[in-house]
Amino acid sequence: MTISHDPAVRGFASDNYSGVHPRILEAITRANGGHQSAYGDDDYTAALDQMAQKLFGENAAIFPVFNGTGANVTALQSLLPRWGAVICANTAHINVDENGAPERIGGFKLLQVNSADGKLTPELIDQEAWGWGDEHRAQPLAVSITQGTELGTLYTPAEIRAITDHAHKQGMKVHLDGSRLSNAAAALGVELRELTTDVGVDIVSLGGTKNGLLLGEGILTLDPALAQDLKYLRKMNMQLGSKMRFISAQLLELYGTGLWRELAGHSNAMAAQLAAAVAEIDGVQLVYPAQANGVFAQLPTEVSDQLREHFRFYDWDRAAGHVRWMCSFDTTEEDVRAFTAKLRELMAAHRAA
Amino acid sequence: MTISHDPAVRGFASDNYSGVHPRILEAITRANGGHQSAYGDDDYTAALDQMAQKLFGENAAIFPVFNGTGANVTALQSLLPRWGAVICANTAHINVDENGAPERIGGFKLLQVNSADGKLTPELIDQEAWGWGDEHRAQPLAVSITQGTELGTLYTPAEIRAITDHAHKQGMKVHLDGSRLSNAAAALGVELRELTTDVGVDIVSLGGTKNGLLLGEGILTLDPALAQDLKYLRKMNMQLGSKMRFISAQLLELYGTGLWRELAGHSNAMAAQLAAAVAEIDGVQLVYPAQANGVFAQLPTEVSDQLREHFRFYDWDRAAGHVRWMCSFDTTEEDVRAFTAKLRELMAAHRAA
Amino acid sequence: MTISHDPAVRGFASDNYSGVHPRILEAITRANGGHQSAYGDDDYTAALDQMAQKLFGENAAIFPVFNGTGANVTALQSLLPRWGAVICANTAHINVDENGAPERIGGFKLLQVNSADGKLTPELIDQEAWGWGDEHRAQPLAVSITQGTELGTLYTPAEIRAITDHAHKQGMKVHLDGSRLSNAAAALGVELRELTTDVGVDIVSLGGTKNGLLLGEGILTLDPALAQDLKYLRKMNMQLGSKMRFISAQLLELYGTGLWRELAGHSNAMAAQLAAAVAEIDGVQLVYPAQANGVFAQLPTEVSDQLREHFRFYDWDRAAGHVRWMCSFDTTEEDVRAFTAKLRELMAAHRAA
Amino acid sequence: MTISHDPAVRGFASDNYSGVHPRILEAITRANGGHQSAYGDDDYTAALDQMAQKLFGENAAIFPVFNGTGANVTALQSLLPRWGAVICANTAHINVDENGAPERIGGFKLLQVNSADGKLTPELIDQEAWGWGDEHRAQPLAVSITQGTELGTLYTPAEIRAITDHAHKQGMKVHLDGSRLSNAAAALGVELRELTTDVGVDIVSLGGTKNGLLLGEGILTLDPALAQDLKYLRKMNMQLGSKMRFISAQLLELYGTGLWRELAGHSNAMAAQLAAAVAEIDGVQLVYPAQANGVFAQLPTEVSDQLREHFRFYDWDRAAGHVRWMCSFDTTEEDVRAFTAKLRELMAAHRAA
Repeated sequence: MTISHDPAVRGFASDNYSGVHPRILEAITRANGGHQSAYGDDDYTAALDQMAQKLFGENAAIFPVFNGTGANVTALQSLLPRWGAVICANTAHINVDENGAPERIGGFKLLQVNSADGKLTPELIDQEAWGWGDEHRAQPLAVSITQGTELGTLYTPAEIRAITDHAHKQGMKVHLDGSRLSNAAAALGVELRELTTDVGVDIVSLGGTKNGLLLGEGILTLDPALAQDLKYLRKMNMQLGSKMRFISAQLLELYGTGLWRELAGHSNAMAAQLAAAVAEIDGVQLVYPAQANGVFAQLPTEVSDQLREHFRFYDWDRAAGHVRWMCSFDTTEEDVRAFTAKLRELMAAHRAA
Repeated sequence: MTISHDPAVRGFASDNYSGVHPRILEAITRANGGHQSAYGDDDYTAALDQMAQKLFGENAAIFPVFNGTGANVTALQSLLPRWGAVICANTAHINVDENGAPERIGGFKLLQVNSADGKLTPELIDQEAWGWGDEHRAQPLAVSITQGTELGTLYTPAEIRAITDHAHKQGMKVHLDGSRLSNAAAALGVELRELTTDVGVDIVSLGGTKNGLLLGEGILTLDPALAQDLKYLRKMNMQLGSKMRFISAQLLELYGTGLWRELAGHSNAMAAQLAAAVAEIDGVQLVYPAQANGVFAQLPTEVSDQLREHFRFYDWDRAAGHVRWMCSFDTTEEDVRAFTAKLRELMAAHRAA
Repeated sequence: MTISHDPAVRGFASDNYSGVHPRILEAITRANGGHQSAYGDDDYTAALDQMAQKLFGENAAIFPVFNGTGANVTALQSLLPRWGAVICANTAHINVDENGAPERIGGFKLLQVNSADGKLTPELIDQEAWGWGDEHRAQPLAVSITQGTELGTLYTPAEIRAITDHAHKQGMKVHLDGSRLSNAAAALGVELRELTTDVGVDIVSLGGTKNGLLLGEGILTLDPALAQDLKYLRKMNMQLGSKMRFISAQLLELYGTGLWRELAGHSNAMAAQLAAAVAEIDGVQLVYPAQANGVFAQLPTEVSDQLREHFRFYDWDRAAGHVRWMCSFDTTEEDVRAFTAKLRELMAAHRAA
Repeated sequence: MTISHDPAVRGFASDNYSGVHPRILEAITRANGGHQSAYGDDDYTAALDQMAQKLFGENAAIFPVFNGTGANVTALQSLLPRWGAVICANTAHINVDENGAPERIGGFKLLQVNSADGKLTPELIDQEAWGWGDEHRAQPLAVSITQGTELGTLYTPAEIRAITDHAHKQGMKVHLDGSRLSNAAAALGVELRELTTDVGVDIVSLGGTKNGLLLGEGILTLDPALAQDLKYLRKMNMQLGSKMRFISAQLLELYGTGLWRELAGHSNAMAAQLAAAVAEIDGVQLVYPAQANGVFAQLPTEVSDQLREHFRFYDWDRAAGHVRWMCSFDTTEEDVRAFTAKLRELMAAHRAA
């Protein structure tokens, strides 16, 4: 039973609609053959930890897991006692896109703060950072930020440092959801550690799938005390892969060779081209600055519906006419041109009608 | 950062120490390129459901997940109200190898029955099948059996039918942990549906990783009423892969082409050769009949420790001197010969000492 | 070891700072003596169900539990599949005062809506009532409202009906947190069923402790289909009392004799007196209308701190200078006079300073 | 609506079929009146902690909760990380009578050991005390014993010490389910601390309800480090009572005055009389030694069914013809005489038939 799909189809729906980068496939193939101990006791996972220390400092360790929700929930759980709560932006992936896994599986409460641009600040955090010692209140003991955010915006290193300093002073740990950390670092022109280790982050969900991997994320802990716990939490949270060498080999290729910057930089560049082009189109407005690989725009709903017949993408806030266009490692300039040409044509027709 | 391993090393530790079968890698490669909708709305996952109906009947549907624990916990959860319990053998993987994920994540209690050979029977089930309506007792509403079992033994189709009839009569559903279902079907010379659909099983954890996949299992439901629920349970249990086409493509190649029987049959044949050879060695006894791809043997602990310096494998019950030797799709006759030769040599030296 | 307390001390901190009404103590005493089957199979619990049907209609049943959090979490759990979510006001007790028990124990997500007065409306509900069928979103399948609210405000029967109609149309059930339902009914001059059964509520946390009981709440279900489930949920949620006759006898006395209205009506009247008196004091403003037994006022923080040296009560929003004064079944007119006299004196001194 | 029951009815079903001892009711009445801070910040709860230190040593603290399941689950949770497991006897209340609350709410796995008499020993514990560091195994980090056991048997202080020494050496904590600790201490003629503090127990579920309380148990921690955690765990586990003074006052009266020994001693004496009397009856055998207030006997099922028409009691193992007869603080010699007379008469008729 051999089936196939049309590889010519591409769109702007999500950076996980794209497939596997050729170099990642090669890394998988290289890791194949013979026997390697299961569950992480293999050569590739060992090398991954060495790489972690090189890239993120001597206290770093990476625990490969299957997906972003698994990484987020397990990482946050490791920061919290059973009565803990996590302060996050209302737009955070953990709050809106994980079907309550943080609450149901992680067993922690999310204390949400409304944020216009998907980013937290010390002031916003303070809206929920109170009530320690009062057993009636789920205890705010961690803060979770996303870099780049779900709205395509970015934190500067200094902004992250302000948050970690503020949180630590109050006895809270800081988690960074980095499913698009590569895009952030590439856009900011900084090293990954400048957004994590160097600015006081405690634990990171280190993305992979959205930047060209077949499947695989890492929990990057920067605190050796957490490493012992993560081993058990990963297993009980059903995120321990048996043939782990194949996830580790992908993460090694992505992060150990600089491929991450190449791919994320390309996605970002495509998003910048897309943003620039659509901003020129009469009747289309950018909703957030396109700082990484996502472009959020406002346009008439009828037009976005017509456009979707040609290219897949998601409504972000249908009532407001907001849509999201994501660029991926395999987005081409031609894709951007074809897309914007079609949008231009539809908007012109719309205005004429 | 390019690392590599020695692909010449092989052992008998587990069928997940081996890598990816070449045809599976090819299937992954074929599924690559272009954009496919994420989270299961892709061509390969659609084809997988068609395949499921062809192989397992019109009510079948497959939900790809990441690993066996994820499949087991999610499948069982779909059978149970919040106050449910599952009757299983004390040796079941869900009971001894999943760090309590069934209880912690699934939220159900396991009612264990001691079984000498890893198999349940209606009589054994009845040890825990009681107390319905009594709110003090976790309600036994599902039975979980493993085929082939963790001890390398097998159920005949008639034995499974006896269990499902017995369970259904008492209002209990039946889950089959089929991480090695291929090995069972190959050994028994039957079709997969003869061990599942045709004998009344309600839901199956359909193995993949242990039979040559890179990573991936399926939850095979044979009850359309469960399909709606599984969608949500898979997501909240952190088992929903975004680039699902790559898991589906592997399962399609394995189960849609008959590759499953070829690979499992080979593993079984190697185990049979191994069992026959070691049974000849003075001082080594088989502990269970080697019906699938696992061989359980008793030998002096000093000898097994010496042997382990040459080939990796696990103690099963160290106090009793029991060890487990697993064969895989890539085990060769030469592997078996080398292993048994070394064992013969060590046992001879041991007896001489 | 006999200790005692000063029964002359009274304050306005909470309606659970007061003790047990004499008639409730008598009811406990009457239920004492001899043996009664444990866990609810007793004469008093049987009578409670008859009373439930008389007061709330033939489909009603009451499950006695220990406390309000236990009632809320268990009631809501009975309305939801494992992937469910509950829409509630940001100020709801389940959201802010239960240390995440709804999420941690109930396993459901709370979708909060900001509400100025603690009340929901169909329009407010619609902010979170969307996304059914999308497995990434915790499914909004129940609405929880509080009557009287945590801010001392009330829903009219028509307002509740608008909510239940709206919710039911969208496939959502409605829970009413009625820890102060008596106060609401007494203030509105209606029967309890006019706020529950008659306006389409599905399940109710029926208060007891805050209206003169020693300890005890009821889960009042108005849907017979839920009753079977509640039995198991109550037990697994650790809310099943063995000597249940003593909780049932209290609830019987409170709700079966009209005592509820007498006590709640008195608390409300005291709150009305208090509200009227403080509204006269220069520099003190009421924050919400005092519709039940709670008075929320704004005054200078220094004054409230001075006042607290004489009478216990809580800050509600210290930054805003908001405090909460609760009246109880045993609050006297003399209590109110003494309190307002002291407040008047302190405010005068404050203004003079 | 005033209902009443027949206080002349008594039986041998359970020590929670009886009501409230008059002195406990008086203690409740004394604690009534005026306002006391809710949630444990009251005079009685403060006195309870002083009493705890006097009875159990300077590190002791008591956290009042609602019921035994709540005490057990919360106490055990406080001993364990999220990946922990508890070794217990297969007959333990936590294993068979709590509808999976330990697993579902506590989130820990029970590792059961078959025990003929309901007691554990170091040797029995060792059956499950292994696998530390292996993330696939729920980590055995606590042992739970019951004193007196569910089978009416007792541990000597030396037997408990042997268990705590053995457990601590292996890094495991020890919980004692003491819902009938009073009966054990009374039967053994020792102080409560000789069965807890003095023999190395870490945490205790201190019974109340089964020895004459209306409702209430205590979590007695002997490790100050746990006290901080228990505050949060009790609240999130829905076991925090608002009018806590009334639970504390009961526990104070029971344990602070020696009433516990008087009541439990009486129950034990009645059980001893009952055991002696039934042992004389032809065809009735004691199944376990009647060391506390429970009598387990074997007799023909027809006879036990006939007897139950006159006195309520439970089958323990119907297939084996085992029944359980429990004595309570209010069991009288006349009750025992009437019961044994009826049993004698029925057995005689049975033998004659």
